[in-house]
Amino acid sequence: MTVKIGIMGYGNLGKGLEYAIMQNSDLELAAVFTRRDPKTVSIITQNVKVYHADDVFDFQDKIDVLILCTSSAYDLPKQTARYASAFNVVDSFDTHAKIPEHFKAVDIAAKNADKTAVIAAGWDPGMFSLNRLYAQAILPDGDSCTFWGKGISQGHSDAIRHIANVKDARQYTIPKEEALKQVRSGSFENLGIRQKHLRECFVVIDETKLCDDEKSVDILKNEIEHKIKSMPDYFDKYDTKVHFISEEDLIKKHSGMPHGGFVFHCGTTGKNRENRHIIEYSLKLDSNPEFTASILAAYARAAYRLNKDGVSGAKTVFDIAPAYIINKTGEELRSTIL
Amino acid sequence: MTVKIGIMGYGNLGKGLEYAIMQNSDLELAAVFTRRDPKTVSIITQNVKVYHADDVFDFQDKIDVLILCTSSAYDLPKQTARYASAFNVVDSFDTHAKIPEHFKAVDIAAKNADKTAVIAAGWDPGMFSLNRLYAQAILPDGDSCTFWGKGISQGHSDAIRHIANVKDARQYTIPKEEALKQVRSGSFENLGIRQKHLRECFVVIDETKLCDDEKSVDILKNEIEHKIKSMPDYFDKYDTKVHFISEEDLIKKHSGMPHGGFVFHCGTTGKNRENRHIIEYSLKLDSNPEFTASILAAYARAAYRLNKDGVSGAKTVFDIAPAYIINKTGEELRSTIL
Repeated sequence: MTVKIGIMGYGNLGKGLEYAIMQNSDLELAAVFTRRDPKTVSIITQNVKVYHADDVFDFQDKIDVLILCTSSAYDLPKQTARYASAFNVVDSFDTHAKIPEHFKAVDIAAKNADKTAVIAAGWDPGMFSLNRLYAQAILPDGDSCTFWGKGISQGHSDAIRHIANVKDARQYTIPKEEALKQVRSGSFENLGIRQKHLRECFVVIDETKLCDDEKSVDILKNEIEHKIKSMPDYFDKYDTKVHFISEEDLIKKHSGMPHGGFVFHCGTTGKNRENRHIIEYSLKLDSNPEFTASILAAYARAAYRLNKDGVSGAKTVFDIAPAYIINKTGEELRSTIL
Repeated sequence: MTVKIGIMGYGNLGKGLEYAIMQNSDLELAAVFTRRDPKTVSIITQNVKVYHADDVFDFQDKIDVLILCTSSAYDLPKQTARYASAFNVVDSFDTHAKIPEHFKAVDIAAKNADKTAVIAAGWDPGMFSLNRLYAQAILPDGDSCTFWGKGISQGHSDAIRHIANVKDARQYTIPKEEALKQVRSGSFENLGIRQKHLRECFVVIDETKLCDDEKSVDILKNEIEHKIKSMPDYFDKYDTKVHFISEEDLIKKHSGMPHGGFVFHCGTTGKNRENRHIIEYSLKLDSNPEFTASILAAYARAAYRLNKDGVSGAKTVFDIAPAYIINKTGEELRSTIL
């Protein structure tokens, strides 16, 4: 029995999903949908075709779960509910503040269609959220703390690219070692924004704007650096390092999409709360989109199984028993992993 | 709405559970049961009584969930199924190899009585198992590896105590730093038993057996050390350190029950599996029984809710959606933790 998967959107996330499906023997890629001209999109799975996104509703009988790999910020707020009215769907919607309204809209659409829609299934929200929940449920008298990185922040990189005379840029969010050390020792105090993370930027100046005069170049660099460091919310509350490098070096050394982070929870137990317990969960990811895609694949399995069990509506990782996401029976799980 | 809890067994785990219940506003201690004379057992919760274990079946209307804090090795194999025929129950059965048969026996009893029985809810099995499952579901092309410690192994401490002329002993299981470092770098190769853990023993010699002659004392110490290090399975496959200390020092420095450990999973993704991802989960616990008890308390909440939802039979942490174990609504979880 295989679960037939449709991929909506074939960017980094969609590609990662195609690879993830290849690693799961019970998942099968049925079709890829794109808003581009399908002829211009080539995929690696043999005998599977690329279709235009507009044609997806013709595939209701051919797809068990449609996984949405479009933009979380711009597409999912409208798309997930729309597709949940015809398909079991999974998305990695990641705007934390807007999850409640997204959940509501998707829940109504999915319930009306007897479909199962898993939303916000990535690593944060997602795996990090699960670790926060388990830790807080077990040790309610405690504090949680999340760090992100070392990894590329797409939003911050984009913000730098919008500065005049900047050709390209990458921004790494980096947890501060002192803060990690402090938290590992059980102290969560005085950890403000500046104390937790460092921002490191690699910037390529638009060469056509450069004159030969070294002094002018220095002035331009100072100007850009100042603009970055004073950018409200994005950088002004952080310690920020700026490096100017060549376009060649940016491509060579900073083209990957690594990411990761840490979830800590420190709680106390005992008659007088004298015993302390520290829970740490961490991810070190070579490829943020491929890891996220792997989570989407596992939760597509869950969406399919839940729907077969008669469960419909919007679900998050909190609502789904772990056994639903893995390709093993209960007996296998109890005798091998438990 | 509070969940009325009965505690069966009032040793370290039962005491830890009493503290845990005090930290959860939706849980309420209803009664404690012991095989000792109830008059000899005093608890700290006011207005709650201690009863003899034999009287527990009179409490079917007064208890929502009975949590079993008796011996995992000697009591639970018989007790859990027996009590599941009358109560929703939670246990921390931890003999990995016997979980499948324990599950089956408890499942039959609980289903016949329309009760919900959560078994093997601790940290290993339990939280560690969950982390193995989530990691393997997401990154099926990968390896998992579990380390235990630094912490007291009750079984190994007992084994040393059974050696002639040993009055008391504590054994710490310690993950080897080199092995942790290797695994964190993504290499799981050549990690045999000896490579992963170190065993450190603190031994008190029975003073009545000591003569004043220093040479005889040294011979005795050598003899005991040899007996420890050559003990089949317990020590012979490990690097083992033995320290002889005074009874006073053992009590002063080694009376706690710390434990912990690490679950690692390293998996690859990508077209040619060129991207590597490392997931690490770790626990540093001041009190093994109190942390385990805190998990039991959270899963008691789940057992109660599942039973209200009409779900009966044996369940493990794999079968229970995370939202069931925490004292928050779905809306709260989505807006605060997700």
